Amino acid sequence: MRIDIITVVPDILKSPFEASIMKRSIEKGLVEVHLHNLRDYTTDNYKTVDDYQFGGGAGMVMMIGPIDKCITDLKSQREYDEIIYMTPDGETLNQSITNQLSLQGNLIILCGHYKGVDQRVRDHFITREISIGDYVLSGGELGALILCDAIIRLIPGVLGNETSALTDSFQDNLLAPPIYTRPANYKGWTVPEVLTSGNFPKIEAWREEKAYQRTKELRPDLLDE
Amino acid sequence: MRIDIITVVPDILKSPFEASIMKRSIEKGLVEVHLHNLRDYTTDNYKTVDDYQFGGGAGMVMMIGPIDKCITDLKSQREYDEIIYMTPDGETLNQSITNQLSLQGNLIILCGHYKGVDQRVRDHFITREISIGDYVLSGGELGALILCDAIIRLIPGVLGNETSALTDSFQDNLLAPPIYTRPANYKGWTVPEVLTSGNFPKIEAWREEKAYQRTKELRPDLLDE
Repeated sequence: MRIDIITVVPDILKSPFEASIMKRSIEKGLVEVHLHNLRDYTTDNYKTVDDYQFGGGAGMVMMIGPIDKCITDLKSQREYDEIIYMTPDGETLNQSITNQLSLQGNLIILCGHYKGVDQRVRDHFITREISIGDYVLSGGELGALILCDAIIRLIPGVLGNETSALTDSFQDNLLAPPIYTRPANYKGWTVPEVLTSGNFPKIEAWREEKAYQRTKELRPDLLDE
Repeated sequence: MRIDIITVVPDILKSPFEASIMKRSIEKGLVEVHLHNLRDYTTDNYKTVDDYQFGGGAGMVMMIGPIDKCITDLKSQREYDEIIYMTPDGETLNQSITNQLSLQGNLIILCGHYKGVDQRVRDHFITREISIGDYVLSGGELGALILCDAIIRLIPGVLGNETSALTDSFQDNLLAPPIYTRPANYKGWTVPEVLTSGNFPKIEAWREEKAYQRTKELRPDLLDE
């Protein structure tokens, strides 16, 4: 898989790709991530990427020109499955979308910054608009990070143990059951006895029950899906 | 406002706090963000922060001991309004929660990593559990970043123009209307005429109508709230 991220602040994105699972999956050659600084696609001396809104109002708007140039340049080199724009009014990301995207070959992710991009970019270049949730961020960069992490960890070989991702919350529309590790007794707070019983069918049944209980209590909406 | 983030991979978090709005708000003294490496609170030579699950199963669990030590140390120095755990089964973050949290004084954010934390941490130390959305990430660090960014940009003085945040999507349960900037004609794709008319009441009415239309089409659920 190859992911090209277009941004005006590539610096934000550096450390997450240089640490943890994303770094290891890049090193293993399981995914390529390329950051593109939109200022490299400007034509004026000031490397302008944004301008005032037509009609007035607070906040700058990202211009269509440099974005067109960057996307056209990338598309001339390979085919892309999706050109994604991170925006709070896109479709809300969920585990089924990340599962789906993790099977793609090449993706472009455009990060909005300031007030967002000129609408014509969305009308003519973008194939999919994704929101990571109902809240506003200072830019699409952090949303792009979330999307990359959620996708990349699903690529086979990225997580040490593949069953680990399959038992996560949401993969079966159930939240995960409570988990415990040593010590069994910490300041008088003890681990549920069943977990130290060695009776694995009983443990499995306990976990299923707890997962169901927790989902019913916290997220009954997941059970209706 | 002061935010203390507890993590096993502080490196992930570096660059976002060293760029863009989060950096500027820290420099302006509007917010303090402190990263705490959980390994500094371990007592063994290997700096162990995780262990196998009781009852078996894939994925490591973060131990209660180092987390207790770190939180207790922080709480001995000042009072905290919330001790937040980032987890996919927490309450789903939205703009009203971020508005609320942006008014707090001191927050601790605990990032889960691996399979998550020992349930006893959640039972005895955590005051609030937050999810940024219905998808699984490789750790709570990126969730913590999202939460910090969403909160910090709301602190008065952080955004250059305060009205800019107030006209964002979600602040009035409406998505934002389309925005445009120069050039008015790009390769034959033109800007809606009203926006270049100079008739501001008409522009305002157009924007309200478009915001309503877009919300009704993409997110009718927001209109019911």
